[in-house]
Parts: sequence; C-alpha cells; structure tokens
Amino acid sequence: MTFLEKILSAQRSRNSLLCIGLDTDMNKLPEHMRAMNDALLSFNKAIIEATSDLVCAYKINAAFYECAGESGWRTMRETVKSIPSGVFTIGDAKRGDIGNSSSYYARALYDDLGFDAATVAPYMGRDSVEPFLTSPEHGIFLLALTSNPGARDFQYLDTGGVPLYRRVIETAMTWNTKGNIGFVAGATRGSELQTVRNAAGDAPLLIPGVGAQGGSLEEAVRFGADARGERAVINASRSVLYASADKDFSEAARGEALRLRDEMNRYRP
Amino acid sequence: MTFLEKILSAQRSRNSLLCIGLDTDMNKLPEHMRAMNDALLSFNKAIIEATSDLVCAYKINAAFYECAGESGWRTMRETVKSIPSGVFTIGDAKRGDIGNSSSYYARALYDDLGFDAATVAPYMGRDSVEPFLTSPEHGIFLLALTSNPGARDFQYLDTGGVPLYRRVIETAMTWNTKGNIGFVAGATRGSELQTVRNAAGDAPLLIPGVGAQGGSLEEAVRFGADARGERAVINASRSVLYASADKDFSEAARGEALRLRDEMNRYRP
Repeated sequence: MTFLEKILSAQRSRNSLLCIGLDTDMNKLPEHMRAMNDALLSFNKAIIEATSDLVCAYKINAAFYECAGESGWRTMRETVKSIPSGVFTIGDAKRGDIGNSSSYYARALYDDLGFDAATVAPYMGRDSVEPFLTSPEHGIFLLALTSNPGARDFQYLDTGGVPLYRRVIETAMTWNTKGNIGFVAGATRGSELQTVRNAAGDAPLLIPGVGAQGGSLEEAVRFGADARGERAVINASRSVLYASADKDFSEAARGEALRLRDEMNRYRP
Repeated sequence: MTFLEKILSAQRSRNSLLCIGLDTDMNKLPEHMRAMNDALLSFNKAIIEATSDLVCAYKINAAFYECAGESGWRTMRETVKSIPSGVFTIGDAKRGDIGNSSSYYARALYDDLGFDAATVAPYMGRDSVEPFLTSPEHGIFLLALTSNPGARDFQYLDTGGVPLYRRVIETAMTWNTKGNIGFVAGATRGSELQTVRNAAGDAPLLIPGVGAQGGSLEEAVRFGADARGERAVINASRSVLYASADKDFSEAARGEALRLRDEMNRYRP
C-alpha cells in the first residue's frame, strides 16, 4: 500500500482520526514500573495493547528515546514492532540534512526502525526532503505550522504576501510527485489550520497540540480534515499516556483515547 | 571553559581553522577494513590519530551512524571518546523540536554522546533552540545558510527586505545571552558569507562545503573568519576521509588535512 492508502485504511478500519504520541518520559512512568528492566518498553506495550483498536496511528518522538542511548534506540524499534499491522506508524524525528545525509536518516527511520512515515524539517529545501520520498509506501509530514510558541518566530514571516508556512506547503506540493508528502500543523493554530488545509489540498495533515498543549479538538477536525472528514491525523500524547499515574494507567489511557476518538468523530461530517 | 573559549583555545593551540567531518560511510571504507568488527570505529580512530594535531574540531554527522542502529550509536559515542581533549567536538544532528523534546535531544547530544556542541535547525523558533543553550560550556551552530542546492528554496526568501537566513541570524542573536550560539554557513555561498559574518558579529561560524562540495577555501577564510582570522570552523569531510581508498588512507588523510590547514592559514590576516 502507498503512504496515503495506509493512512486511509487505518482511519477507516478503526473509524478514528486519533494518533497517540508515545513521547514516553521515564520520569513520568507510574511509580511501580520505574525500577523494571525495559520499563519504557513495557509501558509502551501496555498503552498499545489498551488502545490499538481506537487509533489510526502511533507517533514516536525520537528525542525521548535517544537520550537513553543504545537502549533507547532498541526500545524505539521494539515499540514499533509491537504495534499491530494496519496501524500507521510515524517516526517523529524532525530530520533534514543535505541529500546524501538525509538518505541515511531515511534508512534509519524506514528500514532500521521500521516506521511508515517520518517528520521532516523544511529549512534545507528540496534535496534535504527528497530522500525521504523515494519509495511510495513511505512518506513524510513536513513541518509547516508547528504547535509551539516558537512558531511565531519564523513561520509567520511575510514572504511576498504569503506567510512562510504557506510557502513551505506550496513549494513542497510541487515536489509531491509520488503523493507521499503530508504536513505538520498544530491544533493550537485554530483557524489557520484552514489556510494549511487549503494550501495542502488532499495531502494528509499531522495535527499535534490537542490535550496538554491546549489545542481545540473541534477546530483540529473541522479545519484539518478533508471534506469527507479524513486525512487529519490528530495527535495527543501526555493527556493519554499519563491519564493516570497509578497501576490503572493503561485503562485510564484507554478511557481518554476513547473519549478523544468519539469527540473527534462527532465533529466529522 | 565556555563554548567560545573551547573553540578559540582549540584554534590557537593547533593554529588551525580546520574541522574534519567524520561522516563515515561504511560503503566507502578501504576494502581491507570492511569485514572488520567495528570497522567504522577503527577507521575513525585511525583518522583521528593521524590528524588531531592539525584540526580545531571534529564534526560527527549523526545520520551516518543512526542508520546502523544501536551499534552506530555506540560507534558515535566511542568516536567522541577517542578525540583528544582540547579538540572541539560537534554533534551534527540538525535537531529541533518543541521545548520539552529539544531538552531530551540536548541531553542525548551533550550528556549521552559527550559533544561540546550541536547543530540545530531554526524553523521551530526560540523554544526549540533554548534547551540547547542552558549550560555555557555547551552551544550550538544554528542552520542559517546551508551549503546544499535546497538552500535556494527557503533561505533566500525576502522577509521584509531581509533574506530569511539573515533574519534567522538576527533573531537568534537576541537569544544569545550566554554567548553560545554560532551559525552554519556554507562555503559554497561565496560572498554571502560576508553578510552572514556581519549579521553574526563575533559568533563562531561552522562552514561546511569545502572539498567535495566545491566551496572556496579562500572565501571561507576571508569572509567567514573574524578580523583576527578566528571563529570560523571550516569543515571538510569526504576529501579528507577518502583521500585514499587503500591501506594508506590515514596518511593520505593527514596529507590532505595538512594541505587544507596550511592553505587556510595563508588566507588569515
């Protein structure tokens, strides 16, 4: 299946736009798990087992694993392996380098770690992005309008009548010959999501920032999804992972995932 | 020592602006080494042993190591450990994420891998950069004007009379309260390096793109260094690493490093 087919198939089979971000922080694990060998992996597996029928995707933020060195890298790969087939997987690594180096990053994320997709930073332009697009079954979410406060520093700059984030989208769409480019657009950006959706056409959007970051679920769905209510992959991390800090953490995560999925579905056409 | 003191001390003690990029590609190792256990590490150690009196810094591009998973990560750490103290080390990882995640990337690069500095992508703005700046002994080279063809896509965009790369530098300089921000500016950019140097004031510049990428060594020194001929860290990777594909690779690398260092020094005031 192509990048886009994988996303649509996951969204339809589970009737869900929800993506859970496995940004798992060792310091926030339930007390009883912290001393365990492979605590991070056990935690992730429990979350995945409790929620995989409710989500279209899992997103793994590499930062939380790299800080643990080799064992973190192994945890990342084992986590991807434990995700049931049919659920989309995103390596949220925000990579991007000159072409030769980007091709090695693509190999790490797609081949070594086994992700379906990667997040990529746009600043270095076309040859830094294209190595992530060579096989149609893999694709990217290119950073466009991010959910953090620093998005204000450069992404809104006026570049000849068009804000930089829109120019990034319009330019990248001209590279999208295999249909495997999507964009990151924060749920915290409210109605600007509509500008992103208009510029991105039918491309999928990865929308972080609901939950702990305070973005509106309703706007994420209404502005981020396409006319059929699809192609928005809406991510929540902390609000799901740490719904409970106790032994019932995975049931609590399931409860929150169910609540988020159902609320999103209410806003779909 | 602070970030800047480390750079100046390395440049003065070795009378060198040369940085060697350990972008070590398994497929380009000399024939006789490929079957070795830890071939990458052995190669790096031989290069370091042959050149460490001639360079101010080594730059390790994470892409070439991550594609080998855990063993690549270990090779990266062991390579950093084998660099003599007094030589500056740069983790060329081009990271950048929302603040919480960036702080984990900083931990991976500074604490787990042991680098003095990291390269960071600017697109996500201030809170994505600041976690790399918290300790004055560590610092960053922020991508400004990169050496690759894709630099043309966004970095030159006119943002109210100022190209984006210059705005990135000017904005980042307002965050530079600890004096530990430098910038990446490609040697392939010729006289635009002068614009970068003017905007960056006394900040150090990391200048890739000489050697295989064809940038001018003379322009890198004349435009990139400060008035005293310092604060430019000029990187060559492939032209040094693969100066010979045979058993004499480390002597050949030393020969090329010597040639580059001496030529750079001829252009210094």
